[in-house]
Amino acid sequence: MTVSEIPVRSIAEQLEQLSLINDDPSAGGITREVFTATYMRASDVVAELMAQAGLSVRSDAFGNLLGRIDGRDSAAAAVLSGSHIDTTLNAGAYDGVLGVLGAIEAVRALRAIGWEPARSLEVVCFAGEEPRFGSGCLGSRALTGSLTRAELDSMCDREGVSIAEAMRGIGLDPDRLEDARLDTDAVHAFVELHIEQAGVLEAAGISIGAVTHIAAPHDLLVRITGAAAHAGATPMSLRRDAFAGAVEAAAELERLARSSPSRSTVATVGVVRVGPGAINVIPGDVELQIDIRDHDLAARAAVVEAFLDELDRIVERRGLEVSVETITHDKPAVCSSVVVDAVRGACADVGEPFLDVISGAYHDAMILGAHVQIGMIFVPSVGGISHSPLEYTAPEDIDRGVRVLAATLRRLCEAA
Amino acid sequence: MTVSEIPVRSIAEQLEQLSLINDDPSAGGITREVFTATYMRASDVVAELMAQAGLSVRSDAFGNLLGRIDGRDSAAAAVLSGSHIDTTLNAGAYDGVLGVLGAIEAVRALRAIGWEPARSLEVVCFAGEEPRFGSGCLGSRALTGSLTRAELDSMCDREGVSIAEAMRGIGLDPDRLEDARLDTDAVHAFVELHIEQAGVLEAAGISIGAVTHIAAPHDLLVRITGAAAHAGATPMSLRRDAFAGAVEAAAELERLARSSPSRSTVATVGVVRVGPGAINVIPGDVELQIDIRDHDLAARAAVVEAFLDELDRIVERRGLEVSVETITHDKPAVCSSVVVDAVRGACADVGEPFLDVISGAYHDAMILGAHVQIGMIFVPSVGGISHSPLEYTAPEDIDRGVRVLAATLRRLCEAA
Repeated sequence: MTVSEIPVRSIAEQLEQLSLINDDPSAGGITREVFTATYMRASDVVAELMAQAGLSVRSDAFGNLLGRIDGRDSAAAAVLSGSHIDTTLNAGAYDGVLGVLGAIEAVRALRAIGWEPARSLEVVCFAGEEPRFGSGCLGSRALTGSLTRAELDSMCDREGVSIAEAMRGIGLDPDRLEDARLDTDAVHAFVELHIEQAGVLEAAGISIGAVTHIAAPHDLLVRITGAAAHAGATPMSLRRDAFAGAVEAAAELERLARSSPSRSTVATVGVVRVGPGAINVIPGDVELQIDIRDHDLAARAAVVEAFLDELDRIVERRGLEVSVETITHDKPAVCSSVVVDAVRGACADVGEPFLDVISGAYHDAMILGAHVQIGMIFVPSVGGISHSPLEYTAPEDIDRGVRVLAATLRRLCEAA
Repeated sequence: MTVSEIPVRSIAEQLEQLSLINDDPSAGGITREVFTATYMRASDVVAELMAQAGLSVRSDAFGNLLGRIDGRDSAAAAVLSGSHIDTTLNAGAYDGVLGVLGAIEAVRALRAIGWEPARSLEVVCFAGEEPRFGSGCLGSRALTGSLTRAELDSMCDREGVSIAEAMRGIGLDPDRLEDARLDTDAVHAFVELHIEQAGVLEAAGISIGAVTHIAAPHDLLVRITGAAAHAGATPMSLRRDAFAGAVEAAAELERLARSSPSRSTVATVGVVRVGPGAINVIPGDVELQIDIRDHDLAARAAVVEAFLDELDRIVERRGLEVSVETITHDKPAVCSSVVVDAVRGACADVGEPFLDVISGAYHDAMILGAHVQIGMIFVPSVGGISHSPLEYTAPEDIDRGVRVLAATLRRLCEAA
């Protein structure tokens, strides 16, 4: 068998099927947050697809879904591949879902030609990669033992529902968190197929990215307090306007990210809450949730430090108060040469050009990267758009991605 | 008689008495919205105080309470003074109430020394200055004929109760609205004692403000649209971040207000909504509700125009889209020199320093200002706070305000 004969089928219909399992179709995009009833319906569909592909399916104590094929060599460490099927609010159909459905299809296609891997292979559908509870990659954290029982109570969603409460709501027992932990010594490598969520591949006209680094976020929760006062009666000079302070800080953050020497730092103020929230009242309190990322840890730290310095100066000059909490502080990951070389080799196997790229988004692969050899395969995102109803990847690029993933898994499962 | 001999008493006990008539004491502040049973109990207390001060009391067809002393010259136009006793939700004890109780006490004190005014004098307690039904100053609008019968049906409160329904609930007939109309030709002047609701007097260490102008708002609803995209994966140079555009616009608005040649323009972004509102998604849409005020109409218009120009430039440079609607566009009121000079003279009479100030907030005086000569007397608000349980004016400042009001009424009632 040559890899060009791997009979990969289109997964367009399966992507469409999952996209219909949606908590807010009227918004135009897909809303399917982890641990909701809607999420569990989607998870059941994935379990069924796994079973149809010949995988032995189990759900772990955190709701991660794993589909396994035992290898010829029962002593060899396994190869894992997968992603997630939860979404942000009003999101697209490809982010995460492609890596789950693509891995199932890759295995199905390999099995269809009688492939029997040396290493065991597990397709993983991680629960909660998106930050419903403020911080993401929960399933991969649970799997690698870096999510604590205390966090299940302390981390809450927009409505104040804790992870533990949400778990109980779908029949999971938060006290059994430790049971989800995987023996990472028994894992040889993890590879994740994903949309690029940026415009680098599209701009280059190349369909496959071999990811070499994954940038990681330093996420901050900034609360600025001033004095709510009458918007008409209070002169500009006597105001302690919390939003005016937040505006100055946000402008400074954008300037710092744009001028970062790494040229790859990005900074985003994605959540903004302004109180009391009346047109004739000067804002007395503002909450900002800020995401600062880079694959260059030193460059990221420099932006964070300079921003916090500026923030202090701004609030002092304006007579405001500020508190800053770190929500997330992840280390960027370097992909393993074993996996990156397997991806590059797979591209040669199937005659597909590729580009070495960096992931600006974090992924479950980043979490696993602290424990096992990891790599990722990217396919283009049209317009660089993701987390939006406009998220789109062309069907032929999806086919290429699944084919390269299949060839990569074949290489990884046979390698020493 | 010299004015320093006007035997003004403390009204602290009466303020306390009214503050106990409260629909939501557990919230910490005072909730006493117009046309409720609670409001009517407070109105009865005020009527009783008016009667005790020797005023002839009547309630008009809209529930405004008027207490009259006939002047020596029955042909002369009357002097009016008063304010309101309704509150916003969880409000303070002074806003409005001070101007009603203070006017009653001023008249009582003047009468106690045998004063018999040339002009007739009426103390007015306006029904519904606060915006229970979406828009305020209802009693003064009814009195001046600028509230229509149709509005009594169309304007509703949070629960959907119309003004007409609320009126019927306390025994008033909405079809008799016209009977509340006053002959404004028979009014010489109106003067209102009020808390400042700002920190200008406090900052200056002066207890009396002679109000020269009442500012009015130009309120805007600004919607900025960009592209929601992945916060980690989208390079700074490829973003169309709606919040980053809003930040630049808000910073520009603050700069324009601060540098307005009138030195009295204020601008506030009081309502901010950012979507989709996730920490790892670049904002795709932002709504800002903006209040821009000045007593100087040309200066206000210049700030609005410059802001809209800047806004266009910002959105164009950032590849965003914007729509702007006007929510409110009111004309500022100028206080009459007759009343302002009477206030200044009264301050001289009682040896009280004063500051010429501007009212940034709306008052019934603004409504009357379209028909009769008006003026206002301000006393300090501690911390500039109003519409809050923290609203506070020191008892000695209240005494000074009532004394200056008494001396002002004395001047206005004797003047030609």
